[in-house]
Amino acid sequence: MSFASLKKSLLQAKTTPRIAIALAEGEEIFTAAAEAAGAGICSPVLVGREKPIREQAERSGLTDFDLITASTPEEAAEAAVEAVRSGRADLLMKGKVPTSTLLRAVLRDKEGLRGSRLLSHVAVIELPGGRFLAVTDGGLNIQPGLQEKAAILENAVALFQSLGVKTPKVAVLSAVEVVNPDIPSTLDAAQLAQMAAHGQIKGAVIDGPLALDLAVSPQACKLKKINTPIAGEADILLVPDLVSGNLLGKSLIYLAGYPSGGIVLGAICPIVLLSRSDSAQEKLNSIILGAAYVHHTGH
Amino acid sequence: MSFASLKKSLLQAKTTPRIAIALAEGEEIFTAAAEAAGAGICSPVLVGREKPIREQAERSGLTDFDLITASTPEEAAEAAVEAVRSGRADLLMKGKVPTSTLLRAVLRDKEGLRGSRLLSHVAVIELPGGRFLAVTDGGLNIQPGLQEKAAILENAVALFQSLGVKTPKVAVLSAVEVVNPDIPSTLDAAQLAQMAAHGQIKGAVIDGPLALDLAVSPQACKLKKINTPIAGEADILLVPDLVSGNLLGKSLIYLAGYPSGGIVLGAICPIVLLSRSDSAQEKLNSIILGAAYVHHTGH
Repeated sequence: MSFASLKKSLLQAKTTPRIAIALAEGEEIFTAAAEAAGAGICSPVLVGREKPIREQAERSGLTDFDLITASTPEEAAEAAVEAVRSGRADLLMKGKVPTSTLLRAVLRDKEGLRGSRLLSHVAVIELPGGRFLAVTDGGLNIQPGLQEKAAILENAVALFQSLGVKTPKVAVLSAVEVVNPDIPSTLDAAQLAQMAAHGQIKGAVIDGPLALDLAVSPQACKLKKINTPIAGEADILLVPDLVSGNLLGKSLIYLAGYPSGGIVLGAICPIVLLSRSDSAQEKLNSIILGAAYVHHTGH
Repeated sequence: MSFASLKKSLLQAKTTPRIAIALAEGEEIFTAAAEAAGAGICSPVLVGREKPIREQAERSGLTDFDLITASTPEEAAEAAVEAVRSGRADLLMKGKVPTSTLLRAVLRDKEGLRGSRLLSHVAVIELPGGRFLAVTDGGLNIQPGLQEKAAILENAVALFQSLGVKTPKVAVLSAVEVVNPDIPSTLDAAQLAQMAAHGQIKGAVIDGPLALDLAVSPQACKLKKINTPIAGEADILLVPDLVSGNLLGKSLIYLAGYPSGGIVLGAICPIVLLSRSDSAQEKLNSIILGAAYVHHTGH
């Protein structure tokens, strides 16, 4: 699976997901939206002040869009959320509103987009050879406990299932493969693996604690003589906490230079949260991921 | 700086560092030792049982070596440490003794190799274009406090200075560049940066907290409009804890596929601690790093 093949599958679909962009202002946001719309990946629902949006749309060559007026970041966030709730849009994207403002609108009690699941971030990396590897959660949950980790894991599993991987392999990461009370993430990992063994987490092959080499290198498993069902072929890397996941994900993006995208799952629709330092390709990949999830799950 | 250029500089040196190998048994250890000795990087001081050592040396084509007999892992570890103390060897390498056994011998009160500094692990990655990037400490100190982090930082700075980088740039990593009490590693990072600003840590340009993109990507610094003296050109990445450093280092080795080596610093000589899953090249690179450190510092 690659971003190119995912994009291709979206173009063959009969419907085009509509993406509500909370505060569609600023050139970089329009560039991403115009590119995704131009490629036929999604239809933009632009939320914000009418005049600057129309001007910027003209400059970006974006002609076909829906428009919802809103004058402040708070209003734009709430209007974009409402667009999804009312069925006018299929997924949500952060425009020029602060992440905290958008999440506040998403997490509102009755008028938000919260379902029964925890919100979590999934970074998807395309490895050489065209294979997706997810890192979660390096973007949203700072220090998740056991139940939160199980929820983070389930969100990523749902994403991979929507991408056609029926039973993804999940490595619950730490620095070592032994359970060691001095390294708390090995304890969580052991508990998660056992929760999966006892049927509390379904739809995935789960093992941990595993060091990264055992999760992604069949050769390392052989040399270390470690027998794990992951066998160096993990689809999803569940990290101990936000900081370690952030470092791991960014190392693959900024140092290894691999293509990537990221989305937030767990709400009633996927949320595309772009960062200022994301490249144009990264932004497009994130939109592709969100659109593919909507396309394959219907929400 | 690359491993190839470092190796070349060692071959031009007049002396060859002698490396004491604690329990020199097993083919993989001999392969690494024979390769390093054959390349003129170091002279092996093989510690262990005479008969298997002589037999394996003959099979590996290793003819020129010093031999110290010892019959158990504990004896071998202690004899190898004693070889360094007595001046018969210049640096130490783990052979077929468990890491804990070797470290116990190193850390003994009067007969060990402990100096005044904390022992810490430095992974050195060669980025494309031939540039060294260190990740520390992803190998030894599980949850270092502020003083330990300062000591870990100083060990890595000493390594880079020995490699000719007079004032290395150190990024103290977290997931974000803002100080946030909910993310404890940002607090440590701020304190370390301020310790450097007030002259408590010398010989390096230090900033933090920094997310990895700001540490290694000048472009990300520009897009995010973050002004840091590291400016995306870090030589050393100081990580929050062992697990995050282990994941970061292994991602660059196993997923990005970059050449690497690793050593333990802080004792009176560098220690080469190879892992079973290290490739032959990684093993050689680690010996090159240790030999270069000895060569440039005299200890």
